[in-house]
Amino acid sequence: MTDLLAAIPAEVRIVEVGPRDGLQNEATILDVENRIALIRGLAAAGLRTIEPGAFVRPDLVPAMAGTEDVLAGLRDLQQVRLPVLVPNRRGLRSAVDAGATEIAVFAAASETFSQRNGGAGMDETMARLDEVVAKAKSQGLAARGYVSCIAGCPYEGEVPLEQVVKVTEALIGIGCTEISLGDTTGTGTPRQIAGIVQACAASAGLENLAIHAHDTMGQALANVLAALELGVRTVDSSVAGLGGCPFAPGAAGNLATEDLVFMLDGMGIRHGVDLDRLVLAGETVTALLGHQGASRAAQGWRKRQLRA
Amino acid sequence: MTDLLAAIPAEVRIVEVGPRDGLQNEATILDVENRIALIRGLAAAGLRTIEPGAFVRPDLVPAMAGTEDVLAGLRDLQQVRLPVLVPNRRGLRSAVDAGATEIAVFAAASETFSQRNGGAGMDETMARLDEVVAKAKSQGLAARGYVSCIAGCPYEGEVPLEQVVKVTEALIGIGCTEISLGDTTGTGTPRQIAGIVQACAASAGLENLAIHAHDTMGQALANVLAALELGVRTVDSSVAGLGGCPFAPGAAGNLATEDLVFMLDGMGIRHGVDLDRLVLAGETVTALLGHQGASRAAQGWRKRQLRA
Repeated sequence: MTDLLAAIPAEVRIVEVGPRDGLQNEATILDVENRIALIRGLAAAGLRTIEPGAFVRPDLVPAMAGTEDVLAGLRDLQQVRLPVLVPNRRGLRSAVDAGATEIAVFAAASETFSQRNGGAGMDETMARLDEVVAKAKSQGLAARGYVSCIAGCPYEGEVPLEQVVKVTEALIGIGCTEISLGDTTGTGTPRQIAGIVQACAASAGLENLAIHAHDTMGQALANVLAALELGVRTVDSSVAGLGGCPFAPGAAGNLATEDLVFMLDGMGIRHGVDLDRLVLAGETVTALLGHQGASRAAQGWRKRQLRA
Repeated sequence: MTDLLAAIPAEVRIVEVGPRDGLQNEATILDVENRIALIRGLAAAGLRTIEPGAFVRPDLVPAMAGTEDVLAGLRDLQQVRLPVLVPNRRGLRSAVDAGATEIAVFAAASETFSQRNGGAGMDETMARLDEVVAKAKSQGLAARGYVSCIAGCPYEGEVPLEQVVKVTEALIGIGCTEISLGDTTGTGTPRQIAGIVQACAASAGLENLAIHAHDTMGQALANVLAALELGVRTVDSSVAGLGGCPFAPGAAGNLATEDLVFMLDGMGIRHGVDLDRLVLAGETVTALLGHQGASRAAQGWRKRQLRA
């Protein structure tokens, strides 16, 4: 037996998506002040890339209303990268006006999901994102690209690997400097995720890939491990596992940052996050949201602290 | 990049420990009839090794009282292996009287845990188990050995790897034919678990090892993946993740069998268990226990069925 874990990177960059991907899927809407406090808590825990919000229509996504005010309240956080999600040029203008220096754009590897979730098919979406990213780059903003539905689609079921690769290549082609491979349905399993990572790395470059796992079926951390074993060094996660289905209390959402940090700590992989402070930030936000957090490591950690 | 997952076995044997390790850590005690129904449900789902109970003092572990009646009610389940936990010769006599054909014995890799949980130090415990296993073998019963606290001890904290190896070797030495490596605290992480598996495989033989993970810190499935990648082909798990702390509702216990089965299905690894029936068995028992199950795959699976 050889050391199968030898390819794992010595350092991992965590992209905290709780304030955006997490909060926009919660039943309770947090006001600007509480979202600023959450992001400050996450930054204090050591997170250095945090998605602070999205410039989307507030009537469609009320949880993200006032993202410009969130950014305004974080001007002094110079050491933290704050990429904001923008769906179109209008969103980009708002982002620029608000002082954003990085954006994220969103595409799906499924035609039906693209139409139902984004209001346009895959080709039309990519044409729109091409404009957005070109404009962003011309103004000096870096762009991250999300590929959703990499391991399955809620409408179509199976998603061919070729489509994931095609969308990844297209996002790189329009100028995205990082691709986040998103298992939106949370139905991916390690061998599948490994295959997706390998196929996308061939065209996008391993160093430009991030893995974005949802814990709907309890697979998130195992999937991240499979990606790390291939050398992926950027991982998206959400404090307290924010982002579960808003109408199913306790349902798992994004991979919980605490679970990820606990694993990385145990594996001796550097990441810069303090678990104590992170658990506190998660407990604070879930108290505001009125439900228990979905991070098992956070619960286990708190129990250990109480015993000690 | 090579296929790091190539060493994973094509088939995994699942040892279902919910009716024993799970139920003995639940606040609600199930009567014999409901325990028989649970085990029958698990067998109907395809599980072929199920721990049906323990021959321990009913005043100390009331949840396991009447294990002889549980076995009596399962006589027709000829295709299912039903190893019962026995702590001593008295327990062994009861097991033999009840018609058991396999036993399991329990040792800890931590001196303090051994004393507090088992009432005797590690050496004294092993001397006792030596007698028990010898007697069991002379009567034609196979014996499985548990090593608990492999990745940490609730009292001592760190547990030296040498102690885990020593206990593993001792259990093999007294005649156990399978060793279940138990992360009792649930604090192990993949690289550590891989190191433990490799060290124990060197003396016990990889084919004789099982991994027994708890999900206290959200690491269970990732740890199992790390063990599978080394070629481990026997995995312990508990339907609905039974076995969380009885006084912390929603706290994670053993690795949930549903989460494991979902991963194995996705990876194309044979195991013989039908997820639909397994989820049903889990929902039935958690309804009796009065709390939601801890399996994320079970929750996700049910939601998908409801939508379909």
